Amino acid sequence: MSKKIIIIGGSAAGPKAASRARRLDENAEITIIQKASDLSMASCGYPYYVGGFFDDRSQLLCSPAGVVRDSNFFWNAKKILTFVNTEVTKIDKEKKIVEYRNLLTGENSSAAYDKLIIATGAIPRKPPVAGVTLDGVTTLQSLSDADYLRKVRDNGKIKKAVVIGGGLIGIETCEALNLAGIEITLVEMLPQLLTFLDKHMARLVEKYVQSKANVILQNGVSEFIGENGKLKAVKLQDGTEIACDLAVIATGVIPNNQLAKAAGLEVGSLGGITVDAYMQTSDKDIYAVGDCIETPNLITGKKVHAPFGDLANLQGRIVGENVISGNVSQFPGTIQTGICKVFEYGVGSTGLSEQNAVRNGFDNIETVVNASMDKPGFMHGKLLITKLIVDKSSERILGAQVLGPGDVSKQVAIWAMAIKGKLTVEDMVNADLPYAPPYSLAIDHSIATAHVMQNKLKGLFTGISAEQLKEKLKTKEPMFLLDVRNPNEYEQMRLGIDEKLIPLGQLRKRIEEFPEDKNAEIVTWCKISLRGYEAARILQANGYTNVKVLEGGIMAWPWNIEK
Amino acid sequence: MSKKIIIIGGSAAGPKAASRARRLDENAEITIIQKASDLSMASCGYPYYVGGFFDDRSQLLCSPAGVVRDSNFFWNAKKILTFVNTEVTKIDKEKKIVEYRNLLTGENSSAAYDKLIIATGAIPRKPPVAGVTLDGVTTLQSLSDADYLRKVRDNGKIKKAVVIGGGLIGIETCEALNLAGIEITLVEMLPQLLTFLDKHMARLVEKYVQSKANVILQNGVSEFIGENGKLKAVKLQDGTEIACDLAVIATGVIPNNQLAKAAGLEVGSLGGITVDAYMQTSDKDIYAVGDCIETPNLITGKKVHAPFGDLANLQGRIVGENVISGNVSQFPGTIQTGICKVFEYGVGSTGLSEQNAVRNGFDNIETVVNASMDKPGFMHGKLLITKLIVDKSSERILGAQVLGPGDVSKQVAIWAMAIKGKLTVEDMVNADLPYAPPYSLAIDHSIATAHVMQNKLKGLFTGISAEQLKEKLKTKEPMFLLDVRNPNEYEQMRLGIDEKLIPLGQLRKRIEEFPEDKNAEIVTWCKISLRGYEAARILQANGYTNVKVLEGGIMAWPWNIEK
Repeated sequence: MSKKIIIIGGSAAGPKAASRARRLDENAEITIIQKASDLSMASCGYPYYVGGFFDDRSQLLCSPAGVVRDSNFFWNAKKILTFVNTEVTKIDKEKKIVEYRNLLTGENSSAAYDKLIIATGAIPRKPPVAGVTLDGVTTLQSLSDADYLRKVRDNGKIKKAVVIGGGLIGIETCEALNLAGIEITLVEMLPQLLTFLDKHMARLVEKYVQSKANVILQNGVSEFIGENGKLKAVKLQDGTEIACDLAVIATGVIPNNQLAKAAGLEVGSLGGITVDAYMQTSDKDIYAVGDCIETPNLITGKKVHAPFGDLANLQGRIVGENVISGNVSQFPGTIQTGICKVFEYGVGSTGLSEQNAVRNGFDNIETVVNASMDKPGFMHGKLLITKLIVDKSSERILGAQVLGPGDVSKQVAIWAMAIKGKLTVEDMVNADLPYAPPYSLAIDHSIATAHVMQNKLKGLFTGISAEQLKEKLKTKEPMFLLDVRNPNEYEQMRLGIDEKLIPLGQLRKRIEEFPEDKNAEIVTWCKISLRGYEAARILQANGYTNVKVLEGGIMAWPWNIEK
Repeated sequence: MSKKIIIIGGSAAGPKAASRARRLDENAEITIIQKASDLSMASCGYPYYVGGFFDDRSQLLCSPAGVVRDSNFFWNAKKILTFVNTEVTKIDKEKKIVEYRNLLTGENSSAAYDKLIIATGAIPRKPPVAGVTLDGVTTLQSLSDADYLRKVRDNGKIKKAVVIGGGLIGIETCEALNLAGIEITLVEMLPQLLTFLDKHMARLVEKYVQSKANVILQNGVSEFIGENGKLKAVKLQDGTEIACDLAVIATGVIPNNQLAKAAGLEVGSLGGITVDAYMQTSDKDIYAVGDCIETPNLITGKKVHAPFGDLANLQGRIVGENVISGNVSQFPGTIQTGICKVFEYGVGSTGLSEQNAVRNGFDNIETVVNASMDKPGFMHGKLLITKLIVDKSSERILGAQVLGPGDVSKQVAIWAMAIKGKLTVEDMVNADLPYAPPYSLAIDHSIATAHVMQNKLKGLFTGISAEQLKEKLKTKEPMFLLDVRNPNEYEQMRLGIDEKLIPLGQLRKRIEEFPEDKNAEIVTWCKISLRGYEAARILQANGYTNVKVLEGGIMAWPWNIEK
């Protein structure tokens, strides 16, 4: 008898599971029940549709061959039955039945399963404030949200918008609306944007985003103010009112666990459905995948909620095999690799941030911030800034954050693979990466970052972060601040924090200009702090015991500079 | 007493070693002796200077801050003494002295060393034929070669050129000269271009390059024909004469081992100076780095000659430390990762090719060719084609070759890191890479390639390579050839090898159109063979026992197609 497989959810993980199951068993009866009216939507593409990167909406729904993945497509190409506009209202795990309702006709039905896959995704978190249902207040979560916002773009009438939430979706929404010619205010409750980044890196993003949008941190929405049912302003918790015709709420998502909870399935502390490595829930005939589950972080071993489209697909593939062949395939977990486009910057992260490592009990870590180009200057190289986090005793790489106009995606992929392979700093110091001038520097930015880390671990220099230096400047501690670039570089751009300019090439001859006290605190830098490091080595060789290198140099300074 | 360190060679590895040594010991006496007139030249950038990617020659010689790295720079910024236009004529390892001659004045001198570093690089191989010294015959190895070819571009008089050698430099030279408006014939002695690629992949490159240049394989130069000392034609071994005003020889390089050999240092079978992991030669006070040495391949353990600019720099850093601190730092070896730009394609490789794996005794390998986009269609994704090679029993990844207009550099970096981490197919199947539509597909091309490999290893499909199918077509074996795309796709492009078109969505209904004999050989494909694979699964489920999927589909077909 053929196996009955029912899948709740037709967005990413669900269709992937269904397709994989079909390829492994031509005779199984496979059914997808989908609440929305579309199937297999490329939901990560919504901001780019809204932003006008492309105009043909059907591309969000098409197979690579250009065929819309609707119910006909699923039936003809894959012999998968799909019910759209259909909501599962109950899972009866004793009877192994799901009950569902056609949202258009109101008709109720039920169907029996041998194996059930829950792929109900996540739902947007919304602030519990007045006015949230006003016309002009939306999320960017569903295809109808995307349609709504695309219409905003196409109509060209709305001039001011507020985006609430400085996470990944919030920032992508900023770009999309900015491209539609809309003036944006971005409001974030926390003291930083993009919480997967450490504060310094987030501050660099903020500095950049501020050139495109008005950024307000540590402030939330207290009310959406309307007139005749239409949004007119957003009121913040500190009383500020921002006039606008549009507000997009992007304050994160939570696992959609309602059906699972009601069915008595185990749910984790973060709200995600509990599954094992086979993606099996607490009921042996029910599996769950995608944004509705919790999955282990491979470094800490702790469960996390990682609502990433790529993981949903990978998990779907695993579960599609397991429902057909028994539990043969495992999903090991995540290192929470993510990336987003922030206007002309890429911003990405993999593994643990410093904050996250500390929170998870890593009490002996080392970090560096490194800035360099992705390619040679003559090939029009662009800046990359990386923060690398390692465990000091094992020298194992724990995490990396990368941002800038350069090729961030490759850098994050390199570090993600390094973490996957449990590599150490020593491994990365001599990594063998593809080099040619159109693609990288002779010493790739990732390897250069490993070199800086190795130098630090070997005690060749002491670093000081921009944040630490900023703190010291506040307390007016006496310090000798040294910029070692050339005068023409200094004329074009400088921190302007009472630093002295002594070009590296003159340093040895002008050593008498340094403090008599060999224990005086000296901070050195240049544009990216490579020459700053060389200067520190010279000063150390001349007996100075308290020399620090400003990590990442001027390029990683996250505040405004003199010029 | 301060340590005396002499470095022979001032291009890449030499200056890197000198700089690293300086940073570790402010008091060492460090001297670079350089035969050429320039220092620290970005020699990998020459083809891009010739091709007009940039016009300011000094960028090839500048530090990132825009300062030319001449003798003054090295002395002022790094306290490194440099002699240019100076050739070391002898190493006396008993007396620990080098003898050298100023090539401008003819003056001979000598200098004593505590530690000597040989970084003499490689020299171009030249065919031993008549006319090789004619005006118009050159290599693209030195900065003066680059100057010469750049002048050719700027003068705009030369209309026809022959490039001899279809390796990395030969192909880069083709692009450079093509951008100068010169008609190119590329001549290669072997049956394929780019020998680091397997034949099928090389054939795809050839097909592409043929759209830009006339490619002649399995033919060498027998004579450079001149008139009044100027090149007029290149005569090939088969008698063909190609009229031209310019010929660029790019038939590879050999380690420059003359000084080392004369000094009695050990040299390997490939001509490279023998060094251990510390880069120490058979004499404990002499080290060697860069293109003049042999280094172990990390997969086979065998020594190889790997003249890559990135490795030269990494080795320079290692040796700079070892000459100062004793042998503390090791260079583990290479996986021979390389990449080159071929017009609008990237072409790269890491680890072992199939040919190379077989040659090195791997007798149980599996390969796949996979084609897919680097990004979604709606983000203007471009094609990538990857050949993956794994050891069948351990499922360890041995090598990958990637080419296409898509983001090849990231793909090669991912596989290089996978090999560095000794990862298996299973590890790659659930790799956690950065996903967002501007940067990748939800299932990254590399992961999709691992999926295809896993499916093959699990026996879910049998692949057939384009080459195998082509062979079978020659013998006119009876086969059922099946394209499962849509009719409109078929109208736009098709192999045209007597295939039958049955769109995937109609396959189940039209199963009666297939041979009665369930053991009949059937080959399926689509554009990239994802649907081809689905079709094969359906046919197998219908009892067909001999179904093969054309790997990489039409996109990986390396010959001309019907349309």
